[in-house]
Amino acid sequence: MGEEKAYELAKKQREISIAEFFEKNRHLLGFDNKRKALLTAVKEACDNSLDACEEAKILPEVNVELIEMAEERFRVIVEDNGPGIVKEQIPKVFAKLLYGSKFHHLQQKRGQQGIGISAAVLYSQLTTGKPARITSRIGKNHPAYYYELNIDIQSNKPEIVKQETSDWESERGTKIEVELEAAYIKGLQSVDEYLKQTAIVNPHVTIIYTSPKAEHIIYSRSTEQLPTEPKEIKPHPYGVELGLLMRMLDNTETRTLQSFLTTEFSRVGPETAKEICQNAALLPSMKPSEVSRQQAEKLMEGIEKTKIISPPTDCLSPITEQLLEKGLKRVINAEFYCSTTRPPAVYRGNPFVIEAAIAYGGEIPADGPVTILRFANRVPLLYQQGACSMTESIAKTSWKPYGLSQSQNSVPVGPAVIMVHMASVWVPFTSEAKEALAHYPEIIKEIKLALQECGRKIGLYINKKTKATRQLERANLFETYMPEIADSLSQLSGKKKETILEQLTRMINKPEIKKQLEQGENVEFDEKMKLQVEKEENEE
Amino acid sequence: MGEEKAYELAKKQREISIAEFFEKNRHLLGFDNKRKALLTAVKEACDNSLDACEEAKILPEVNVELIEMAEERFRVIVEDNGPGIVKEQIPKVFAKLLYGSKFHHLQQKRGQQGIGISAAVLYSQLTTGKPARITSRIGKNHPAYYYELNIDIQSNKPEIVKQETSDWESERGTKIEVELEAAYIKGLQSVDEYLKQTAIVNPHVTIIYTSPKAEHIIYSRSTEQLPTEPKEIKPHPYGVELGLLMRMLDNTETRTLQSFLTTEFSRVGPETAKEICQNAALLPSMKPSEVSRQQAEKLMEGIEKTKIISPPTDCLSPITEQLLEKGLKRVINAEFYCSTTRPPAVYRGNPFVIEAAIAYGGEIPADGPVTILRFANRVPLLYQQGACSMTESIAKTSWKPYGLSQSQNSVPVGPAVIMVHMASVWVPFTSEAKEALAHYPEIIKEIKLALQECGRKIGLYINKKTKATRQLERANLFETYMPEIADSLSQLSGKKKETILEQLTRMINKPEIKKQLEQGENVEFDEKMKLQVEKEENEE
Repeated sequence: MGEEKAYELAKKQREISIAEFFEKNRHLLGFDNKRKALLTAVKEACDNSLDACEEAKILPEVNVELIEMAEERFRVIVEDNGPGIVKEQIPKVFAKLLYGSKFHHLQQKRGQQGIGISAAVLYSQLTTGKPARITSRIGKNHPAYYYELNIDIQSNKPEIVKQETSDWESERGTKIEVELEAAYIKGLQSVDEYLKQTAIVNPHVTIIYTSPKAEHIIYSRSTEQLPTEPKEIKPHPYGVELGLLMRMLDNTETRTLQSFLTTEFSRVGPETAKEICQNAALLPSMKPSEVSRQQAEKLMEGIEKTKIISPPTDCLSPITEQLLEKGLKRVINAEFYCSTTRPPAVYRGNPFVIEAAIAYGGEIPADGPVTILRFANRVPLLYQQGACSMTESIAKTSWKPYGLSQSQNSVPVGPAVIMVHMASVWVPFTSEAKEALAHYPEIIKEIKLALQECGRKIGLYINKKTKATRQLERANLFETYMPEIADSLSQLSGKKKETILEQLTRMINKPEIKKQLEQGENVEFDEKMKLQVEKEENEE
Repeated sequence: MGEEKAYELAKKQREISIAEFFEKNRHLLGFDNKRKALLTAVKEACDNSLDACEEAKILPEVNVELIEMAEERFRVIVEDNGPGIVKEQIPKVFAKLLYGSKFHHLQQKRGQQGIGISAAVLYSQLTTGKPARITSRIGKNHPAYYYELNIDIQSNKPEIVKQETSDWESERGTKIEVELEAAYIKGLQSVDEYLKQTAIVNPHVTIIYTSPKAEHIIYSRSTEQLPTEPKEIKPHPYGVELGLLMRMLDNTETRTLQSFLTTEFSRVGPETAKEICQNAALLPSMKPSEVSRQQAEKLMEGIEKTKIISPPTDCLSPITEQLLEKGLKRVINAEFYCSTTRPPAVYRGNPFVIEAAIAYGGEIPADGPVTILRFANRVPLLYQQGACSMTESIAKTSWKPYGLSQSQNSVPVGPAVIMVHMASVWVPFTSEAKEALAHYPEIIKEIKLALQECGRKIGLYINKKTKATRQLERANLFETYMPEIADSLSQLSGKKKETILEQLTRMINKPEIKKQLEQGENVEFDEKMKLQVEKEENEE
């Protein structure tokens, strides 16, 4: 009986295409409901547009249009002025999952997996049966090409429905149109919010947005300067795992272990390579292809024993403190702003930078938890806040010493907006939909440090403000009794009452207190608070 | 400039293998840290073993052994008495991601995606460079085959390191050995806990477990009866989406629309098929391959307009109320147990059943939130509790009327353990690691209904207990003054004090109150509470 069953089971065994897999599991790609589907489609298209423009050093101008075709059915049109896509690549880029230019390179990009835009095409096809329509042109001396594309689900290959040249008026760029089942609802997780937040952290981008209600919103660029171009890097030896190292040894074109190490890794010069070999008890002249599994393990130990400088950091392009604050000021009317960009750090061999900014007071509502804005490689993250290590880091930071109220391990409460950005050559997301950061301890540590830096600044402000408020109260009280005190002093000392009154008024210096209260600036560090903060930080 | 860039970008475009993708994103598969890696590897192997045994109608006996090879390095060995795997399939089943027998069938199974066990092999290879070792035999008249397997990461194909017949002593079964970087830590998210909970909801399974500390734990089966075999079903018309419908029309071997509908879907007989066609204004005799996109859309509308009975439910194999309670009793010493199995329901065309059980009081600690045990298709879910729709459903149920304290939208607090099980032909997980259920409204609704059913039962118990406690207090108070009352009554009535005392004692009937307090049984429904419960439920 068992035997038959084994044969019967064998007959059922089949390969599963990645497109079939994601069609059935579309919530993994951010298409779990109609509202989110609209956002995800727009997001994937915009992310690609911005990446392409920046890579080609073009100031991006992105046109987003949403049209309500019928109840719960929308057309999404995203058009850019980017470098365009060469004809042969168009079908694969848009209609094949796991195909792209970014996955095999360590470089700070918005996209990284080669899934996003094809996922939007897949979802559109699944819900409306209509092919995606792509137009792209790489320059005025080239024709524009127009494609209608489906994904062949069973083979995960593009299916070209139509293919022709087009008399597109644009000189250069790419335009995608998809029709999908969706819902347009404004609010914190809407397309509107995504575009607004994108404009905040990408001041070099112009976004022209037409909503389904035919509202026309333009976010004009506030700088003509492109962000520093993030450089591509090689992996750092500290981040490599045994299996990957063995594969690299197999695939390398280098002929000695020493040149393998210097060529395939960042931060390994000839001397460091020799030292690694020595620590691994392997000959630097050894052929990489002859390194056995045991020897590769020794090589791992050799790497661990050798002091290698941290990965280069010019591969990262943070938003910078100044632009972060400017961005926050554009959307939030607060009393006090501060921001910080941490020095680069490393997780699993990948360099990354954490930035944080806080806006406090003013028009920000004081009741309820603070508002959290999360960004990864300049892309706003609007879903899965609870699952994100940024949220965890905020909840696990002690905010009481900085003047915000907080119950244990919760997001603090008060009139503040906390913004966190992670820039990295590889952002670890908790799902293919790229909505939340995975919980790597190195990343959480850096976020907490950035938050503490900002926390100290707003702490000073809040503290100073509290102090000034109290001083003002005391001054007001003193002022009430001043005439009587002056009277008594005048009698005692024999001096004129007016002179004494004048001296007393100078002494309490109310205008200065008021000024302090308004500005909350130039505050010296309060030693008692400093100690308290350090104590709390050490306890963690 | 733009043109060059387009060509430059084109050169970088490449296909990404699914193995590469998951190697870089291994946290998606449940391998984000060393502790979880150990659990995930064991879990994937056990789930496959149990599925295979049950499919072959063999009472499962699974042998799990963990051996600490070095610091943070473990060997995981899982051996079963299942039907075995035919020789040709062994490499693909264990060393190719997205390959399996379950994905293309709608049937209640533990595994469903064809990823899990190959993911364990991938992770083992990545962290220790060692191939997975598989032995399998399909019957005593067949040799046992032994394989050493790696995954070729760039092509996602099995790489056979060694292949030979083996003199394995078992008559039938499969054994997998992998070595991986891992950490063994006991507690709520450990291998120990996973095996314990698996035994609870699979009373027909024997598990023999040897921990890395060489502890030997045996969970013997408590029943010789296999669970009802879950039947395979066709999709239900209500759950199909346009894109999928079009593909089905293309791929079908049927020759008319009517026979297409009756053959490819469940619950569609000839009459219903005709009605659908009529509602869609299409001819039942039409050729499926000639149905256009627009006509397919009409067909969708036709399906929507037609009343079709719910999907069959004999495809589901719930644990059943009785076994749920029995399972809880095996691990938790409580005062009161209750459980419920909901009638089958449907989400996206997939039938599913929700079951819930609650244990209350006794040795369960009363401070802090209740303990939650989550299961999907008889597999315990130990991670991502916060991201799971089971947890959300518990938090969004009003527990106060049932006697548990609760702050708004939080998990209730009190001496209780809440267990939830979902059985379905397709469980929607939030990630490939299968740790939490996605938030489909239909599923959340069913979970809440199951919880409310259990809630009412424990509410009655708690309410009765509170009432009995109060009665006992009153009785005790009365008892204190009874001699004096008897004295007065004796003087007034002239009866003997002893007689009066006796009558009074009978009247308060303390033994009965005590009995009620101990048993908390046979309680009549308290009308006031019933009204309150209904009110709360309606408000949601």
